[in-house]
Amino acid sequence: MIVGFDVGGTNARALLIDETTHQVVDRARASSAGAGPVVLSVLVELVNQLASRNDVSVEAVGLGVAGLASRTGVVRYSPNLPDLVEYPLGTELSAALDIPVIVTNDATTGAWAEAKVGAGKGAEDFAFVALGTGIGTGFVVGGRLVLGANGFAGETGHMVIDVEGDPHITGQRGPWEYFASGSALGRQGREAAAAGRFDAAIDLAGSVEAITGFHVADALAAGDDDASRVFTAFCRWVAVGCANLVMIFDPSRIVIGGGLSGIGRPLADGVAAWMPEVTLGSAHRPPVEIRMAELGDEAGALGAALLALEEL
Amino acid sequence: MIVGFDVGGTNARALLIDETTHQVVDRARASSAGAGPVVLSVLVELVNQLASRNDVSVEAVGLGVAGLASRTGVVRYSPNLPDLVEYPLGTELSAALDIPVIVTNDATTGAWAEAKVGAGKGAEDFAFVALGTGIGTGFVVGGRLVLGANGFAGETGHMVIDVEGDPHITGQRGPWEYFASGSALGRQGREAAAAGRFDAAIDLAGSVEAITGFHVADALAAGDDDASRVFTAFCRWVAVGCANLVMIFDPSRIVIGGGLSGIGRPLADGVAAWMPEVTLGSAHRPPVEIRMAELGDEAGALGAALLALEEL
Repeated sequence: MIVGFDVGGTNARALLIDETTHQVVDRARASSAGAGPVVLSVLVELVNQLASRNDVSVEAVGLGVAGLASRTGVVRYSPNLPDLVEYPLGTELSAALDIPVIVTNDATTGAWAEAKVGAGKGAEDFAFVALGTGIGTGFVVGGRLVLGANGFAGETGHMVIDVEGDPHITGQRGPWEYFASGSALGRQGREAAAAGRFDAAIDLAGSVEAITGFHVADALAAGDDDASRVFTAFCRWVAVGCANLVMIFDPSRIVIGGGLSGIGRPLADGVAAWMPEVTLGSAHRPPVEIRMAELGDEAGALGAALLALEEL
Repeated sequence: MIVGFDVGGTNARALLIDETTHQVVDRARASSAGAGPVVLSVLVELVNQLASRNDVSVEAVGLGVAGLASRTGVVRYSPNLPDLVEYPLGTELSAALDIPVIVTNDATTGAWAEAKVGAGKGAEDFAFVALGTGIGTGFVVGGRLVLGANGFAGETGHMVIDVEGDPHITGQRGPWEYFASGSALGRQGREAAAAGRFDAAIDLAGSVEAITGFHVADALAAGDDDASRVFTAFCRWVAVGCANLVMIFDPSRIVIGGGLSGIGRPLADGVAAWMPEVTLGSAHRPPVEIRMAELGDEAGALGAALLALEEL
């Protein structure tokens, strides 16, 4: 059996995966707060727990980490896991369990899960775009996962699309996630509400300041016209970045996941509607298929397990 | 032997390549003007010429085409070769010669040549960036050339970096090549000259309107301070797009080629100097190596031949 982890800013989620069927056999989770050695002991404990209560042995572990994880298993940069930075989590875990451990970014592992058993299945060239607090991405090119020279590929949320634009929390001007993340949808909702054009969101959230992307999504689901206008403009921003990815990679499919994926089909359809307008030469290209992710919030851990499986 | 072509807007350049040594055995070129059947007969003639005068047989042909070439060998979109659009050049040439023919974009084939025998050698993940009239790019990821689902990968010159910016000739606002191509360097030189800050370029070109990127390069080589200022600002634009590629792919190396590569080392150094400032998290990443291309204007044809070789 294989264990896949999604190590986020708050929790570490573990999945016990059958290496033949790729099915989830068991689940566990625990807090991921604390310094490297603390997180290490939490992960060891979760692996042992899953192994003993299912009476199996674990042959490899995959870690999907929210941040820049080097191929050698060191977390190099992670706003969400600051205590883990420069800690060799991968090698320490491998030594503690005496089995192979691979470490990579959680959106990269999510892309691999969708590629193998989710909405990317059958596409040799596809992009996974997770819209949440920021934007995480992962790419499959010619059937293979793109890891990058250091294991840092897929940080496309930080791709600059408006070089003269507003500064983002990262200090960059106009990165894609400033316009097209779940956080961006919330800000766009607050801007519309403050201008008197989104009363439904104020009703849902209690105040302009309290509006998040989820309130916009809820108002949209309720059929509110103002929400529809905010959402349509938001989908254009998602499409602008996706069009850049089309220029660069030429994927046949883009799979949208992450925290906003609860919006479902309207999100894929909303982005797809903008693609011909924002994609250069679209009259000469087959349309890029825009699909919603299928694996929900287990994609990261599942993909980490499936990647670890390839190492055996 | 293999023949590689670079089919540009004006000329078709052919290289006869030894499949074992990868050396150029002979060269030929002819006009690429005209409709599909005319270009086809030109290519057939060049292949036969190279074969007969070297007394060898040609086993495969690779075509690097300036435009979007589908994997099946049809040129789908090409501002430089409008008469070729929708003509099945690859399949027709294959039928006429009765040997395998592969077709892809000229910057993609250029990347492959640099990867195999040029400045990309030894890098498993690298980006080739050709700065000319526009920007052409090609990528090697995990040691493999990125072709894309349709063969259209590498159109990164059309990656939008200033979504609210000036409209480019393509109709898009603020694509990378609007700021960082050889044409852009010329415009930036004209702007400086018109503002009275680049007299050396006027002296070289004869008038503000006549200034091109090559005049800026010449003034730079002559040590002109105004040229240096224009060039430094230009290098920042190149770096901004390269930083996006770093976010997306995480290459260990970026190789700069194309018409501006005559500037040589100052171009690589100029771009490298900006990279830490424009690359998010650069303190946590190994620096990306910026190198000049090594194969000059034969990279496209050579790479096409080397790609065709892989098909055998």
